[in-house]
Amino acid sequence: MSTNPVTVTAPEGVPFIEITREFDAPVEAVFRAHTDPGLVKQWLGPHGYDMDIEAYDVRTGGRYRYVHSDGSGGSYAFNGVFHTVRPNETIIQTFEYEGVPDSVSIQTLTLEDLGGGRTRLTGHSTFPSMEARDGMISSNMEKGVTEGYERLDEVLAGR
Amino acid sequence: MSTNPVTVTAPEGVPFIEITREFDAPVEAVFRAHTDPGLVKQWLGPHGYDMDIEAYDVRTGGRYRYVHSDGSGGSYAFNGVFHTVRPNETIIQTFEYEGVPDSVSIQTLTLEDLGGGRTRLTGHSTFPSMEARDGMISSNMEKGVTEGYERLDEVLAGR
Repeated sequence: MSTNPVTVTAPEGVPFIEITREFDAPVEAVFRAHTDPGLVKQWLGPHGYDMDIEAYDVRTGGRYRYVHSDGSGGSYAFNGVFHTVRPNETIIQTFEYEGVPDSVSIQTLTLEDLGGGRTRLTGHSTFPSMEARDGMISSNMEKGVTEGYERLDEVLAGR
Repeated sequence: MSTNPVTVTAPEGVPFIEITREFDAPVEAVFRAHTDPGLVKQWLGPHGYDMDIEAYDVRTGGRYRYVHSDGSGGSYAFNGVFHTVRPNETIIQTFEYEGVPDSVSIQTLTLEDLGGGRTRLTGHSTFPSMEARDGMISSNMEKGVTEGYERLDEVLAGR
């Protein structure tokens, strides 16, 4: 199955990460795959990880927490709260990897209807320090994002 | 009444604002003044503004929203959600000025017990763009912070 390319950009000198990716699916389907925990569980994160969702309540003030397990004893927990949720358009949420507590970033996800049942996703993450941003990049985050969106393609194709 | 100085720093080239301020009051009192809406209302913001609090629910996932009115028809609304709340120690929350919607920053407030009934407050705010950070600085934010903490001194002295 062919997939669309993802771009992950870490601009020099400022603590941001930018992501863009197109999907061959309507904006409503892409949004739903980001908000229905049963769907999120099928794609978020790299290949080969199990995702255990403790909470995934996508509304202003809702919180999420999940644990990725790599099948050989390693596990990685993440949590955050939702600041803004506008269906089929925008999600603004906080993000904390519990391995580095209190280093909380904020990310804006925007969906754009490209017509013809296609969608452009853009993500903008802001980190509280350059070290936190660089740590995220060096954690193999690009692989996780790329593989996660490949899995999301499959989820979207299945509906 | 004499007050302690506040420092507000906007470092070159990165979208942060750093605040430090000491208070001649115990950490518990400073924390309470940040979490009890009846107290927050007495000090948050510059002199001469009325603060109308719609919500101020200081717990993980809790939201806040308030409106500052300048008494001559101008009003300014702010909202956010709380990501982390550790009593007498740390509050991590999002912050949005509704006049610039979707430009959401994240701020970490840390309280440190200096002994002798004194407290050091440090704030670290991270903005989603340099423009958002610079816009906050040029909105006379330093005046609002300075005057707000002068008012907070009075609230703390009254207890």
